[in-house]
Amino acid sequence: MVVSLSRRGNVEPFHAMDVLAEANRLKAQGVPVISMAVGQPSDPAPAKVRAAAAKALQEGRIGYTDALGLADLRKAIARHYADHYGLDVEPGRIAVTTGSSAAFNLAFLAMFDPGDRVAIAAPGYPAYRNILAALGIDVVEIELGEAAYLHAGHLEAAHRQKPLKGVLFASPANPTGAVIPADELSALVSTAEALGIAVISDEIYHRLAYGAPDTTALGFGDSVTVINSFSKYYCMTGWRIGWMVLPEELVRPVERIAQSLYISPPELSQIAAIEAFAATEELEAVKGRYAWNRELLMKRLPELGFPLAAPMDGAFYAFCDVTRHSNDSMAFARKMLAEAHVAATPGRDFDTQAGHRTMRFSYAGSHDDMVEAMARIERWLR
Amino acid sequence: MVVSLSRRGNVEPFHAMDVLAEANRLKAQGVPVISMAVGQPSDPAPAKVRAAAAKALQEGRIGYTDALGLADLRKAIARHYADHYGLDVEPGRIAVTTGSSAAFNLAFLAMFDPGDRVAIAAPGYPAYRNILAALGIDVVEIELGEAAYLHAGHLEAAHRQKPLKGVLFASPANPTGAVIPADELSALVSTAEALGIAVISDEIYHRLAYGAPDTTALGFGDSVTVINSFSKYYCMTGWRIGWMVLPEELVRPVERIAQSLYISPPELSQIAAIEAFAATEELEAVKGRYAWNRELLMKRLPELGFPLAAPMDGAFYAFCDVTRHSNDSMAFARKMLAEAHVAATPGRDFDTQAGHRTMRFSYAGSHDDMVEAMARIERWLR
Repeated sequence: MVVSLSRRGNVEPFHAMDVLAEANRLKAQGVPVISMAVGQPSDPAPAKVRAAAAKALQEGRIGYTDALGLADLRKAIARHYADHYGLDVEPGRIAVTTGSSAAFNLAFLAMFDPGDRVAIAAPGYPAYRNILAALGIDVVEIELGEAAYLHAGHLEAAHRQKPLKGVLFASPANPTGAVIPADELSALVSTAEALGIAVISDEIYHRLAYGAPDTTALGFGDSVTVINSFSKYYCMTGWRIGWMVLPEELVRPVERIAQSLYISPPELSQIAAIEAFAATEELEAVKGRYAWNRELLMKRLPELGFPLAAPMDGAFYAFCDVTRHSNDSMAFARKMLAEAHVAATPGRDFDTQAGHRTMRFSYAGSHDDMVEAMARIERWLR
Repeated sequence: MVVSLSRRGNVEPFHAMDVLAEANRLKAQGVPVISMAVGQPSDPAPAKVRAAAAKALQEGRIGYTDALGLADLRKAIARHYADHYGLDVEPGRIAVTTGSSAAFNLAFLAMFDPGDRVAIAAPGYPAYRNILAALGIDVVEIELGEAAYLHAGHLEAAHRQKPLKGVLFASPANPTGAVIPADELSALVSTAEALGIAVISDEIYHRLAYGAPDTTALGFGDSVTVINSFSKYYCMTGWRIGWMVLPEELVRPVERIAQSLYISPPELSQIAAIEAFAATEELEAVKGRYAWNRELLMKRLPELGFPLAAPMDGAFYAFCDVTRHSNDSMAFARKMLAEAHVAATPGRDFDTQAGHRTMRFSYAGSHDDMVEAMARIERWLR
């Protein structure tokens, strides 16, 4: 038996996905699990999106597209920057990707070599850390501690210790939901530029902030790489479709790598996604439900002994301190799934240091499910 | 302006994809291009496959699945190994992937570290070389020269020079169409095992051989990693759906990496692909057309001064020597597209050394298109 196992393959599991797999196994056995583990809307994609996909299915072949995506989708995304942000973006700078997952992988490969230092916030989305690590890039995790979000001061301090090549941040953030205020975002980008640090801004939770309007990092510099997706606001998780806005110099490198690593994003999802920007009414209604769920959880979770560990500014997550119940959120999440049949994500995913103290609850599900989940947890804790 | 450009991002373009992009640009201008550049069937996915997708679209949300894929699809793929090869494969060893592209990336990441030496054949599929290079793996290209396929002797010689960690081969091969005979395949796998070299067998062109029955490398060793896809025989290119059969020890590492790098393969494509194994009648009719196209090109291409550089055993490619017309197949392909409106892939994609002498014609299109393409090339060459 010759089985080759790499060292770099030894990344952390994405625990939310493990919880999802376990929840799916329980559901297949007939257990009525409520999932608050994975960040995905319970709604299907908007009707127009599904109608466009159905039409394409009837009309013929679903084939490879240009590696950077269908011209019409790139144009539609460019128009979205004009409509939503008032920014003029060339369609040629848009790369359509197989979810934001592919966008991260492509950006990292095109921008960084092994040994380069790239800063991210902790807590943060675990795939950042895991993809960077698999690609041999040095992950510099900046512990936010009491701060709600990454700011220019964090970046300066980390860079002073040892120079950074890049920084990646999200606003609204996963798992915290925190939004970086516009002036702080501006300072963060200009500080990065001044220090020679390349910026990647993850804007996947845009259009899902409950207070301030969206601010894109693109507005503060043309050298910023922006990553976004149709998965969250547009309810298209399983379609695997996202995009990047790239500085000119990165377009061709990203295209070359994408040709070999992805060939092209799924065509049906691309055709369908063009319609997503025309479904605002339907999607705002979905967002209205998130806002309702958010009100519920802001009240109920602290009552149940899960105080909020971050402000619930945006996205659809409540990030909570669980230390009143357990000092091992991983074991606690497993027990809660097995006994109360409510799935949530242990903080370990987002913060290898302090994650044993926290847990993330996604409120992208139905309101009834949220009510029922809180009731189950209450009964179970008694 | 702070734009970070990595060294490793400087991979070769996948020229076939560049030709596709150029062909798409011409088509958008109304130029009636016939594409023989990209390896994709002109037929849509089988009716049953599209019906399953349409039904899923109606029924509701297209969401994330387990990172290794839907249980029903993994079972269907396992059954295919029993039905088609008479082999007993556990569904737990199947990983569903976002096309074979994701399978290669996952296999390479899980199996090899930077600096490991992995052998591939030249000519060969360019994404092998480009993905391996982007991941810092040393690509050992074994020039086949007069040999039609990679054999145990090649492997021993390369390993003697400097030890190999892995070997990757395809049968039927891209771009040559060559099939490794069963006894040679057995010798290749057992030689690799004896030398401690991990084997990856790319079987994406299985069910598309015109002479011998399919032989899977799985039959010769449990430690082999097999990669396959629904893109070719099953006519599902743009659906981006493929699979791996993994040795037990690799299942969890691949799952962990897939969770972060891909989340999950597209769900709609997974649901649809389950039906692909029940569409044999429709798909064999499509294969019948390839066989018809093959007869045509085997005769016409040499008549037009493009002698075959490899036997046309399988897949849907004619790999030809173009030196009677040009010593720069890249320039020749560009000129042929611009003037004759026939797209084909320059050999440079498949062989950086000798590729200027060769070109690949895909015959996965309609028979009428093949007839017309040959007529256009004939007129153009006069």
